[in-house]
Amino acid sequence: MDTNRVLNVRRLLNKSSLDACLITSVPMITYLTGFSNFSIEEREAFLLITKKNQYILTDGRYTTAVKNEVANFSLQEISSSNPLKVVLEKLIEKHKVKIIGIEEHNMHVNEFKMLKQFVKTTKDFPAVSLRTKKETTEIRLIEQACRLGDETFAFIIKNIKPGVTEKEIAYLLENFMRQNGSEPSFSSIVAFGENAAVPHHQTGSTKLGKNGLVLLDFGVKYHNYCSDMTRTIFLGKATAEQKKAYQTVYAAQQKSIEFLNSQLSPIKSGSRMATTIGTTLNSSQSKLIQTSDVDKAARDYIISQGYPSIPHSLGHGIGLEVHELPTLSPVSKQRLENDMVFSIEPGIYIPGKFGIRIEDLFVIENDKLRQLTHSPSHLIEL
Amino acid sequence: MDTNRVLNVRRLLNKSSLDACLITSVPMITYLTGFSNFSIEEREAFLLITKKNQYILTDGRYTTAVKNEVANFSLQEISSSNPLKVVLEKLIEKHKVKIIGIEEHNMHVNEFKMLKQFVKTTKDFPAVSLRTKKETTEIRLIEQACRLGDETFAFIIKNIKPGVTEKEIAYLLENFMRQNGSEPSFSSIVAFGENAAVPHHQTGSTKLGKNGLVLLDFGVKYHNYCSDMTRTIFLGKATAEQKKAYQTVYAAQQKSIEFLNSQLSPIKSGSRMATTIGTTLNSSQSKLIQTSDVDKAARDYIISQGYPSIPHSLGHGIGLEVHELPTLSPVSKQRLENDMVFSIEPGIYIPGKFGIRIEDLFVIENDKLRQLTHSPSHLIEL
Repeated sequence: MDTNRVLNVRRLLNKSSLDACLITSVPMITYLTGFSNFSIEEREAFLLITKKNQYILTDGRYTTAVKNEVANFSLQEISSSNPLKVVLEKLIEKHKVKIIGIEEHNMHVNEFKMLKQFVKTTKDFPAVSLRTKKETTEIRLIEQACRLGDETFAFIIKNIKPGVTEKEIAYLLENFMRQNGSEPSFSSIVAFGENAAVPHHQTGSTKLGKNGLVLLDFGVKYHNYCSDMTRTIFLGKATAEQKKAYQTVYAAQQKSIEFLNSQLSPIKSGSRMATTIGTTLNSSQSKLIQTSDVDKAARDYIISQGYPSIPHSLGHGIGLEVHELPTLSPVSKQRLENDMVFSIEPGIYIPGKFGIRIEDLFVIENDKLRQLTHSPSHLIEL
Repeated sequence: MDTNRVLNVRRLLNKSSLDACLITSVPMITYLTGFSNFSIEEREAFLLITKKNQYILTDGRYTTAVKNEVANFSLQEISSSNPLKVVLEKLIEKHKVKIIGIEEHNMHVNEFKMLKQFVKTTKDFPAVSLRTKKETTEIRLIEQACRLGDETFAFIIKNIKPGVTEKEIAYLLENFMRQNGSEPSFSSIVAFGENAAVPHHQTGSTKLGKNGLVLLDFGVKYHNYCSDMTRTIFLGKATAEQKKAYQTVYAAQQKSIEFLNSQLSPIKSGSRMATTIGTTLNSSQSKLIQTSDVDKAARDYIISQGYPSIPHSLGHGIGLEVHELPTLSPVSKQRLENDMVFSIEPGIYIPGKFGIRIEDLFVIENDKLRQLTHSPSHLIEL
């Protein structure tokens, strides 16, 4: 695994005046070690990174694999006779760790209480922030996942027929991914008709009629990297009400894209020029883009057309996890910069009637916005 | 959802002198509400249960579904304008909560710190312990999952042929589950030859030769309830060394089963009679079974035959999660009682050579041990 990543952790340690950090989150462990077999549902491994040493703590179910596959961390086996507490306490004493960084969003209270028995001072350590900007290889993997997602979409629209159930569509969709060397990055959302009014509908046994709306929200995981895309299509004709809502969602997404482009190319944007005149137009320009403003561009448009506000964030970063930094929401204080990959996914939901969402992934590279998902997003009537 | 479960939570609140508890773990939320659509990977909902009221806190992606499907909890919507902290603080003030129970094994440090801003005293609340003993309906669902697991095994052994890869077997296995109204309860472990020496091998692209050992560890999830089973079989002839190890693992599992039976029916067991004579032989007898003794029966046998000790616990409870209470390990202080469902899974692992594990699920009902997985576990040479 790229040891630059561990160096970046150390830089962050120094910046935060920490002696060490304890990494608990599985995606962060995958990021730093390249080893991706630990369960998300249970705690099976820890990384302890001090100023000069780095350890991976895991149990007998994984030690052989870790020995073979993780070269850049020293293995410390934990077992019932040599439990985590004992192993960790020894290492912390050995390296005289007085102030330790922890992943507060991930560490459990019982682990925290154990740790506090032998390290007095803990501080939140934002290791995940190291993953906000992607490396070129990461962007390539996400792009490949998006490509597989596009292929999945092209495959699935051929299978949308009267009488099919949501679960059948989800099965076919995910089966296609699995037969093509990937897997779902999350449990696919397939929602027909009024079910689509629930943004995170639980795919069920609703049958599609002769005419009907089909919302598909799915992602592909390829070499640990995720894609995410939503399309809303129609079997038969969309109603006038549905068409109007669809065009509004589509236009809302465009508003955010246009806003982003205007911020990234200030020369082309009259309104922006006034504020940037006299400053150097280099890559640092992108640092000025507030995610909340991108959210606002789409949200305000939807509201201006008489629809309810989007009941979720406009978008999210993506990478080893489906939801990463940055968050594009009304209250987010984060900024968009080069090498960030994120979704833009406005939606309109009319309870009891229908829901429409369009979601695509984008990357900012060299101060340019590039779309990574390429499935058609105009209104499709099958 | 069965409101008895919520009543049991309240009994536990009273017993622990708590004013309320905050439930964060998804399986516990499923158990108490019947709603199973929240993601395991992200925090999307909370339950607050006070002495008289019960609330479910979630966001706009789920509110419509929760309104329709969760009748026994009052919905409190959280959003960027009405965030968790505000909603929770109001409820806690309203119900004058001074001491709150939390799931320390699940709650994150950042949530804990937020909560501590408005509740001074927190205590670990072992809500999961309510799920250790299963209701009849739960046992039936686990049994059904086991039956589907047996069918999956019968299907997959027909597909074990020279040239097939681990990933292909895993795909076929999981695809069979999906086509039969269920899904994998965890990512299936398929390990050929020396890969099986890693207890939690990451299913990969190793190809099976003309002869070879195949370890299959997989589970079915059916209506949210999990099965779990491991079989080690041979394409062609097992070597003498493999046969000896296989018979040792098989006998080790039998040792644990015999030990359990002897404890459950003390009259039949001479060695046990001496200690129980004069006491009433009722269902409370089963309370005397230490899980560590069940572990010891298999573990000691394996060691006595000259093999290394099992590098993991002998077994685990199972239900809504693959791993639940009780734990059957050398250091566990837990006891086996009626209505508990658990695995017994001894293994022998010879690094660089091979690994053998046999795992079955059992339930104790009316002081009798009953096996729930029924796939053949004698040595199979295909």
